[in-house]
Amino acid sequence: MPMSTADAPSANGGDIMKWTDSVFEPREPAGFMRLRNTIFRPCKAIPGLWIAWRRKFSYYSCEQNRRRTRTSTEEDPVKKLRLGIIGTGIAARELHLPALRALKDRFEIVHVASRTPANARRFARMAGGVPWTDDYRELLRNPAVEAVDIVAPISLNLPATRAAVAAGKHVFVEKPLAGNLPDARRMCALARSARTVCYIAENYRHHPVYLRVRDLLRAGTIGRPYAWDWHAWYHMRNDDKYAKTRWRRHNRHIGGLVTDVGVHYIAALRMWFGELEPTAAWVRSVNPVIGDTDTFSMTARAPRGVRGTFSIFFTACGCSDNALTVFGTKGTLSVVWDRITVRIPGKKPRTVTVPDDGGFRGEFAEFHRAVTAGGKFINTFAEGYRDLETMLRALALAGRTAGARSGA
Amino acid sequence: MPMSTADAPSANGGDIMKWTDSVFEPREPAGFMRLRNTIFRPCKAIPGLWIAWRRKFSYYSCEQNRRRTRTSTEEDPVKKLRLGIIGTGIAARELHLPALRALKDRFEIVHVASRTPANARRFARMAGGVPWTDDYRELLRNPAVEAVDIVAPISLNLPATRAAVAAGKHVFVEKPLAGNLPDARRMCALARSARTVCYIAENYRHHPVYLRVRDLLRAGTIGRPYAWDWHAWYHMRNDDKYAKTRWRRHNRHIGGLVTDVGVHYIAALRMWFGELEPTAAWVRSVNPVIGDTDTFSMTARAPRGVRGTFSIFFTACGCSDNALTVFGTKGTLSVVWDRITVRIPGKKPRTVTVPDDGGFRGEFAEFHRAVTAGGKFINTFAEGYRDLETMLRALALAGRTAGARSGA
Repeated sequence: MPMSTADAPSANGGDIMKWTDSVFEPREPAGFMRLRNTIFRPCKAIPGLWIAWRRKFSYYSCEQNRRRTRTSTEEDPVKKLRLGIIGTGIAARELHLPALRALKDRFEIVHVASRTPANARRFARMAGGVPWTDDYRELLRNPAVEAVDIVAPISLNLPATRAAVAAGKHVFVEKPLAGNLPDARRMCALARSARTVCYIAENYRHHPVYLRVRDLLRAGTIGRPYAWDWHAWYHMRNDDKYAKTRWRRHNRHIGGLVTDVGVHYIAALRMWFGELEPTAAWVRSVNPVIGDTDTFSMTARAPRGVRGTFSIFFTACGCSDNALTVFGTKGTLSVVWDRITVRIPGKKPRTVTVPDDGGFRGEFAEFHRAVTAGGKFINTFAEGYRDLETMLRALALAGRTAGARSGA
Repeated sequence: MPMSTADAPSANGGDIMKWTDSVFEPREPAGFMRLRNTIFRPCKAIPGLWIAWRRKFSYYSCEQNRRRTRTSTEEDPVKKLRLGIIGTGIAARELHLPALRALKDRFEIVHVASRTPANARRFARMAGGVPWTDDYRELLRNPAVEAVDIVAPISLNLPATRAAVAAGKHVFVEKPLAGNLPDARRMCALARSARTVCYIAENYRHHPVYLRVRDLLRAGTIGRPYAWDWHAWYHMRNDDKYAKTRWRRHNRHIGGLVTDVGVHYIAALRMWFGELEPTAAWVRSVNPVIGDTDTFSMTARAPRGVRGTFSIFFTACGCSDNALTVFGTKGTLSVVWDRITVRIPGKKPRTVTVPDDGGFRGEFAEFHRAVTAGGKFINTFAEGYRDLETMLRALALAGRTAGARSGA
């Protein structure tokens, strides 16, 4: 049976919607064939030819696969990357560590740094009793460390990345890229000159729910999209673990919580619709205890005439809602948390719940591939820059051009 | 038992939310007393004094009641108003006629006019076999007609109102006031000089659901409101009865369907938050078959720092959603169609479904009172002007300053 290893374009949305089990283990659509970890589709032009259509466990779009310099399959023996963790706060403990544990065949934590010794010690114990330090420069001098995960207050991103690149380490750094655009540009310059991989940890570009949305939109499931509405309304109490963080409460970075969390949504919107041009925005500080910016709404324009609104509130008392609606010429797609519903006139609405790990495993897996296999990857600093720049342009339209502690 | 006939301020939101039966027949809160059609509350300052608190069937806010020159109760014998109907389209048949039938003690249809003889004849039969004509000027010459209900294409509002006022008839005219601002100003000038009542039929200012929202907000149920989000996403098919109307398809008025329906929402928002200042808007024509404007979103600023978004889409394929959320410093109020939910942190969400006639009986009842009892009323042409002007200012921000057929 002749086979092509080229990836085929996405199937139509109908087939994608039939996968009610998991994105990680897709069931092959009717007429398709599964061989080990790959699903093949019959070639329409040449009967008898099967074309590789989708890989199990693949977080990649077909485009990214095509661009990769080396095509590795999951069966290849993987090189374990020795990782140093810089910053041991909530995100490191609760978001990164579980993902790294799930990918323990690919990552080994070998050193931990936090300026708070108690935190460093605690995290080092959680990571299996590895060495720890209260000075990340000490970690960077450790020759066993090949790559660092910088998951620290935003203002540390630039100095820590600079030092890590100078020490020849690969860098995986938490979004947002920086707290302001000049620093973000310095980050991009570092990435351009670095001989190591500089990776921005934007998990929404690997988020199973939002990748599924991307696939459905690309497959034309709702026709041509012309508008979206996305609102994320949360109630962050004063005693919330994130709200209690000093650098969040007294935010030096522009836009406080709104920027810190908002760049995720911008990243997803850019993935679906292309570059956004903010056209209007407003901003409020309803509860100054949780930072100088907690309420934000923007409208933006995307290529091909797509328009939409994105709003993020951290002060929606008693309310918790995350709802995206995309309007297309043939139907409407809505996402409420991890539940995607497609409505097409005259048909029964179809709903799929996508198992959702937040995209953390996906981003670490991509970072590992970028370091060990080389080639292109999605989460470049340039992408992180565009997420942040879009967010800050919208905030500027709303008159927010400085952080609370920046003295500007 | 000494009694005061002065109306008391609204009770707190908690009491209002307990009324799970009907706004028309409120149950008295604990400690209150009902006597015939009036509910009395105990006066806190003077024990033993009872203060009239709320009337059954009353659509009025306390303010309006206080301003009324004559206080009539529902027991008064009512004068029947002899009404001529100008225009016998969908709104006349399906929205106005049922309300007039429900208020048959207050209205008597005595003449019907439509430029389409078949429609006029049909409506005249539905109204009990009254005379009909294809020329509204003939109806205006009928001395039996005391008031007219103008429910015709928007462009007819000005000439028909002018002729009716000249003929000494009271005028009840369907929103929007006009298709453009110069005509709307002429309508206001007519109202100022008229010796008869000039009433704009804005049913949302009498809509039971939205009056309840107003009461809850006034009672401070969610603290101080600081933001709202209201989206009305409909799918108007090409064969929809409204979409098939010629004057809607080839709209001469600015903003087509969006203005025609949008002024309702503006009226409600103004009732809750005060005058709106549109700050940004965008507009689209996704399906040109249903008019030149079918998709609209605006952000606006209201007094006391309230900000919000309102969007109305007629092209949300397969989707039907009408959801308002108001964010306050103490809680969140949401309305999905006729279901109001109040969320206060630490308390169980409270939901009430408000029986909803669309507010048509309320507006006709107010018109009847204005004509027979005199005094102030809510739905003045000046109010209708502000609804329309707000809508058209937002449309202008989106670049829409002319109707499809206006040649501008």
